[in-house]
Amino acid sequence: MLENLFASRVKPDEKSRLVGLFPETHYLDNISFGGGAPEEKLFPVEELKEAYQVAVKRQGAHAFQYHDIRGPEYLRQFLVERAKTLVGIPEVTDDEIMLTAGGQQGIELVAKLLLNKGDAMAVEAPTYVGALAAFDTFEPTYFNVSMEDDGADLTQFELLLKAHPEIKLFYTVPDFHNPTGITMSVAKRKRLVELANKYDFIILEDTPYRDLRYVGKSLPSVKSFDTEGRVIFLSSFSKILTPAFRLGWLVADPVVVQALTKLKLTEDLEVPYLPSATIEYYLQNNDLDEHIQSLRALYQTKMEAMMAAIDRYLPGIKVSHPEGGFFLWLELDQGIDTTKLLWENAVPEQHLVYVPSESFYAHRDRKNGMRINFTGPTYEQIDDGVKRLSKMLVENSRQKEIFVKAI
Amino acid sequence: MLENLFASRVKPDEKSRLVGLFPETHYLDNISFGGGAPEEKLFPVEELKEAYQVAVKRQGAHAFQYHDIRGPEYLRQFLVERAKTLVGIPEVTDDEIMLTAGGQQGIELVAKLLLNKGDAMAVEAPTYVGALAAFDTFEPTYFNVSMEDDGADLTQFELLLKAHPEIKLFYTVPDFHNPTGITMSVAKRKRLVELANKYDFIILEDTPYRDLRYVGKSLPSVKSFDTEGRVIFLSSFSKILTPAFRLGWLVADPVVVQALTKLKLTEDLEVPYLPSATIEYYLQNNDLDEHIQSLRALYQTKMEAMMAAIDRYLPGIKVSHPEGGFFLWLELDQGIDTTKLLWENAVPEQHLVYVPSESFYAHRDRKNGMRINFTGPTYEQIDDGVKRLSKMLVENSRQKEIFVKAI
Repeated sequence: MLENLFASRVKPDEKSRLVGLFPETHYLDNISFGGGAPEEKLFPVEELKEAYQVAVKRQGAHAFQYHDIRGPEYLRQFLVERAKTLVGIPEVTDDEIMLTAGGQQGIELVAKLLLNKGDAMAVEAPTYVGALAAFDTFEPTYFNVSMEDDGADLTQFELLLKAHPEIKLFYTVPDFHNPTGITMSVAKRKRLVELANKYDFIILEDTPYRDLRYVGKSLPSVKSFDTEGRVIFLSSFSKILTPAFRLGWLVADPVVVQALTKLKLTEDLEVPYLPSATIEYYLQNNDLDEHIQSLRALYQTKMEAMMAAIDRYLPGIKVSHPEGGFFLWLELDQGIDTTKLLWENAVPEQHLVYVPSESFYAHRDRKNGMRINFTGPTYEQIDDGVKRLSKMLVENSRQKEIFVKAI
Repeated sequence: MLENLFASRVKPDEKSRLVGLFPETHYLDNISFGGGAPEEKLFPVEELKEAYQVAVKRQGAHAFQYHDIRGPEYLRQFLVERAKTLVGIPEVTDDEIMLTAGGQQGIELVAKLLLNKGDAMAVEAPTYVGALAAFDTFEPTYFNVSMEDDGADLTQFELLLKAHPEIKLFYTVPDFHNPTGITMSVAKRKRLVELANKYDFIILEDTPYRDLRYVGKSLPSVKSFDTEGRVIFLSSFSKILTPAFRLGWLVADPVVVQALTKLKLTEDLEVPYLPSATIEYYLQNNDLDEHIQSLRALYQTKMEAMMAAIDRYLPGIKVSHPEGGFFLWLELDQGIDTTKLLWENAVPEQHLVYVPSESFYAHRDRKNGMRINFTGPTYEQIDDGVKRLSKMLVENSRQKEIFVKAI
C-alpha cells in the first residue's frame, strides 16, 4: 500500500475541493456554472498575439532561456504604480512587489510561509474553495468567522481572537467575496487592521475581482489601512486580462516578499519570462483600464441575465446581490444536499455544473448552497442552465414527496 | 516582528540554497558557470514561434482560457510513448503520466506528498541543490548516502535502512548525477529497487539530463526495474528543448499521480495551455531526437573545451569525468571554503559565478568543492572563466601564505 507512505496532509479517500470545480461532463450540451472562467470573446487575442511576438523579438533566443525570478522590470514598475492607484497605498516600493504563478500560487505560498501543522488561522465562512484547498495541505486548525451583509462579523472575530490569541492568519476576500458576493465596508476594513495589530496576526487580502465592479464606487483596500506591514494584498491578471499566462502579483512587507520569493524558488525556480513579458508589452501598448471597462459592461448584463433567469425559473429563492465579481450564491432549503445533487442529478442528468456549498466551508459542514458563475456561459446557456437547475430542484422535491408518501 | 509569525520551515537568516545559483554580478564581463542554462543558440526559435502561433490558432480565443490540469492529449500520448522507449517500461498507461511546472515542481510535489515534518528521507551526498531546497521546506530528517564511482553506495544505504526503517523516500539522479556527473550502474539500479521493495520506501528518479549523453550507451532507467510502483520517474523539457515553458513530466503509479494532481491543483490550478500546446505542436512537426543530437554534439565539444581549460589553468585539480549532463565537479583542497570565495572574490573581483559545494549537501557541511556549468557559457567564456577561477585560487593561496608568514 503506497498510500501508507503518504504524508498526513494527503487524504486519498477525500474528494479534492477543487475536483468538481472544472468537471467535464462529456456531453455536447454541457453548461458550466462551475469555475470562474472569464468570457472568452473579450480576450484581446490579437493584442496578446502581437505582444507575444514582440516579447520574443526583444530578446531573441534569450527569450527561451531561464530568467530572473523577479520578472520583467517595466511590469514590476507598472504594478508599483497600480498598487498606488488601485490599492491606494501612497508609498509602494519595488521590494514590496512580487509576481506569482496566478493568484493561486500566492495563496499557497502564504500558507507555506506561515502555517505549521496545527497552527490556528481564521477564514470567512464560507470562503474561496481554492484557498481552503491550499490551506488544507498545511493542516491548520481552522476558525470560522461568519459573514454579515457588510463583510465578516468582526465582533465575533474579536471574541475568537481573545479566546485564541494563537491565530496567526486571516484570509479574506473583501471585494465581491467569493462565494457570497458581499463587499466589506470601509469601517470594517479599518477595524480589521486594528485587530491584526492588536492580536498580532497577518491578513491575506485576496482581490482577483476588485476591478470588476458593476454597481457603486470602489472602496479603499484593507492594505491601504495597514500600519505594520501585516496585510498581504494579492491580485491577478487572470480575471481582467487572461488566465492563460498564470500571472498573479502581491504587495507585502519586504521581509514577507523575501521569504515568499525563497519559497517560490523551490516550487518553480522563476516567473516564466515569455508570459510575463507578453503581459508587460501588452500593458505598454494598450489601456488595461479601458479593457476592464468593456469587461464590466458585459459582465453586468450577464449578471442581470442570470438574475432574470432566476426570477423566471426559481422565483423567491434566496440569492446574493453582488456589486461585482463573477458569481451568484444561492442558499437553498436546509434539507437539500447540493453535493449529492451535483453528482447524482446535475452532472449526469442535466449536464450542468456548479460548485456545491460544502467545498467553501473549512469543515465542509454546510450542504444547502451553491455558487454559480455568470461570466463564462453565454446568455443562452445562462437561461438554459438556470432552467436545468430549476428542473433538478423540482425532481429532487418530487423524490422527497414520493419518499414521504411511501412512508 | 513579522518573522515571529513565520512557520518553522522558513529561516529568514539562512541563505537560500538557490539564491546564488543565478546571481547577477551586474558587470558587463560577467561569466556564469552557475545555473544549468542551456546554450541559447540551439533553441529552435523559429519552430517554437510557429508552434506558438499554431497553438493559438487552433483554439482561437479559447487558447487564453483556463484549461484542464491534465494538459493537451497529443502531448500526453507522446509522453506515454517516450516513457516506453526512453524510460524502457513496456507498459505505460495514460493515468501514469503527469505534467508539472518544470521538473522543479515535480520534486516539490513529491516532497509534499510524502514528507511530514521530521520524516526520514535519504539523499545522495552531494545532490541537486534545487531538490534539497524543495525538501528543506518540508523539514525532513536527512540521511546521507555517499557516492561511489558507479553511483550511490548501496551497501552503506542498506545499513542505514536497517538502522532507520522509517526512511520513506530516496532521491537520486542516476544519469550524470548533479553535481558529481556520476552515472549509476545497471546492477545498482536493480538493487535499488530491491531495497525499496524490502524496506518499503519510494524512489524519486530525477532525469533532466538523461538524453544528453556524450560518451557510451544509455542505461535502463531505475523505473524500468520497478515492480511495485515505488519509482517516480521525473523528466523535463527544460534541458532538451527550452526552460522557458516550465514543462516537466513524470511517470508514477496511478495512485501517486492522482494524489500529486490534487496537490498541484492547490498550487497553480492547471498546466498552462499555451506553453504545453506549443510544445505539443513542436513535437508533432519536428524531430525532437534529431534536435537532441545537435545538442549532444555541441555540449560534448563544450565539455571538452572546459576540460582543456582546466588542464591549462588548473593542472592536476580533482575534476569529474562525466559521460553527459551539464556540469563538472571540482574537489579542492580541504581548507578551501568555496562559499566564502564566491562572495568575497569570484563575484566581486573576478565577475565569475559558480555553485559552491556547501549547497549540495543536506547538512551544508562540505565547503571545498564547486559545480561549474559548461553548456551556458560561450567557448571564450569557458576559457576565460576557468582562467579567472585559477586566478581566484592563486590569490586565495597567496592570502593564506601572507597569513602564515604573519604568524
